[in-house]
Amino acid sequence: MPNTAARDHRFLRALRREPVDMTPVWIMRQAGRYLPEYRATRQRAGSFLALAKTPELACEVTLQPLARFALDAAILFSDILTVPDAMGLGLHFVEGEGPKLARPLRSAADIERLGVPDPERDLGYVMDAVRLIRRELAGRAPLIGFSGSPWTLACYMIEGEGSASFARAKALAWNEPALMHTLLDTLAKSVAAYLAAQAAAGAQALMVFDTWGGLLAPAQFREFSLRWLGEIAALLKADPVAKDMPLILFSKGANAHLEALADTGCAALGVDWTISIGEARRRVGSRVALQGNLDPVVLAASPDAIRREVQAVLDDFGAHSGHVFNLGHGITPDIDPAHVAVLVDTVHEMSRNGAAVSTG
Amino acid sequence: MPNTAARDHRFLRALRREPVDMTPVWIMRQAGRYLPEYRATRQRAGSFLALAKTPELACEVTLQPLARFALDAAILFSDILTVPDAMGLGLHFVEGEGPKLARPLRSAADIERLGVPDPERDLGYVMDAVRLIRRELAGRAPLIGFSGSPWTLACYMIEGEGSASFARAKALAWNEPALMHTLLDTLAKSVAAYLAAQAAAGAQALMVFDTWGGLLAPAQFREFSLRWLGEIAALLKADPVAKDMPLILFSKGANAHLEALADTGCAALGVDWTISIGEARRRVGSRVALQGNLDPVVLAASPDAIRREVQAVLDDFGAHSGHVFNLGHGITPDIDPAHVAVLVDTVHEMSRNGAAVSTG
Repeated sequence: MPNTAARDHRFLRALRREPVDMTPVWIMRQAGRYLPEYRATRQRAGSFLALAKTPELACEVTLQPLARFALDAAILFSDILTVPDAMGLGLHFVEGEGPKLARPLRSAADIERLGVPDPERDLGYVMDAVRLIRRELAGRAPLIGFSGSPWTLACYMIEGEGSASFARAKALAWNEPALMHTLLDTLAKSVAAYLAAQAAAGAQALMVFDTWGGLLAPAQFREFSLRWLGEIAALLKADPVAKDMPLILFSKGANAHLEALADTGCAALGVDWTISIGEARRRVGSRVALQGNLDPVVLAASPDAIRREVQAVLDDFGAHSGHVFNLGHGITPDIDPAHVAVLVDTVHEMSRNGAAVSTG
Repeated sequence: MPNTAARDHRFLRALRREPVDMTPVWIMRQAGRYLPEYRATRQRAGSFLALAKTPELACEVTLQPLARFALDAAILFSDILTVPDAMGLGLHFVEGEGPKLARPLRSAADIERLGVPDPERDLGYVMDAVRLIRRELAGRAPLIGFSGSPWTLACYMIEGEGSASFARAKALAWNEPALMHTLLDTLAKSVAAYLAAQAAAGAQALMVFDTWGGLLAPAQFREFSLRWLGEIAALLKADPVAKDMPLILFSKGANAHLEALADTGCAALGVDWTISIGEARRRVGSRVALQGNLDPVVLAASPDAIRREVQAVLDDFGAHSGHVFNLGHGITPDIDPAHVAVLVDTVHEMSRNGAAVSTG
């Protein structure tokens, strides 16, 4: 599915660490509640899940931020818990409380009976959305497909909902590591198949959100998160379509592990805002591209402050290729969309004129 | 107030990086809701704040965990927001929602009119509690006094309550840095005076909880958190009593800054569980002692897993002096007290017999 025009887009060039005319930028959760048009579509859909499960509506909200801002990538609008839902755990949302699973994993038998979902059969609404969005984008910007990481999915599947500490999930890892690996193995196969199917349907880059990896102590992170991220990278390398799609890994709060994450074979790492992106670059060298890492809260500050902080991130990364500008975490609902325009335009202006980015 | 017996206690010896007979251990939030006797006293007090503000009750709950477990230190039972309360912001608690301030800072005038509280006059209930606890401890274990950090107090004072991102506080730092520093300067003077008064009243070690420092990007951390932690260390060094009391700084989630924190002149650093304590030791060398860093969730696992993970932390720290065993964050209300006994006893047994700790 990749064509010459798409290959030449600055977002994909930056992921390949090739020179670009200016630094590409997109924003995690760019199709979200801070946009009035998103809230209107969400209202029309009746529920978050109806929005995510109706390809036409998912396509509509995916494209909304690209109509407003000069963003360099679109990201599939979906939820990270679609895979557990397809496994039969019953995803639903309680207003103001976030995602819940009706049938969390409570026994070894619950884990052992889990199968790997067939993406086209069990997650057809996602594949239809990917195909529709890719067609509607018509080459304007590349499309990113995504999934939650095995560890992050396991956290939710064991707790049944969000948690500050995911104590049940961690306790299972300490008490019954073999059983936890059985679960993570099933999840790694499921995530890899899901991402490969998104690539076959038209996604041009793939991202794994390891949202809760950073809750783990170093040895646990390596055993229960990193190992299975590496397995996904290896499985995708063996897939005839996905092998050509850049894979972005984002382990939030796991900056101690950047070198090891870079060694998984991924194309790029997401970086949160609690580390200097210059230091991250020095540590991983030119092995991978880096995506980040402005503190999302900067968008609540004044336009002048936003410009200053954008410049600081660009300066910090320096005159290397391989930078995709992004926030260090998702944009929050309270942000003024006018501030997002300031961010996007500033990234382009300052990286085009400044010394920070080599020109292609 | 220090006497020879107190100076010889293994907790204070470890903070001075002197040899000890076994690794000392205490637990953040050790006087807390996981203990049925704490819940009973809390019930009798009528509210959390009545408990914290009644010296006899604060003393009672401070001593409760020492009656159950072979802990090597007591920590004053109090709240980190006593200083903003003494400044007139109106601390109160809403059941299930955490602390609130009735009069958060909303303007430059609000900030400029803040004064430095006189600890004996404005926080007399804390000083009375320290005196009473010290007397009741009767040398069994050293007493730790504490405060929130300037940055952490500023976060609550600006938001008026807890927050996932403290967007108002961060935005003030970006938009009006001079005004933020006015606030932090007042807070640093207030915290230093408060800690010095606790030392004069009998506290034998002092700890600053920089709970929200880890939310800051590196440059912001250095400017708005670290700088004022250093100021507190310097102010305490100039105090005739506090200068002899070891100061422990704990910036949760700020592992990127351990070297800089060690250079503030403090005696020890708290370390959360997301970094190997061996790596932390290699980075700070023998400049400071380290306190930590077992994942608090380990206490939700089996006794066998707890023993294994305690041993892993001891092995990771290695055969140096200067280790105070602790969790990497506070104990949570769901923990079985029997598991705490396993932890405390295991630390002592394994460090006495093992090669991990030099003998005094």
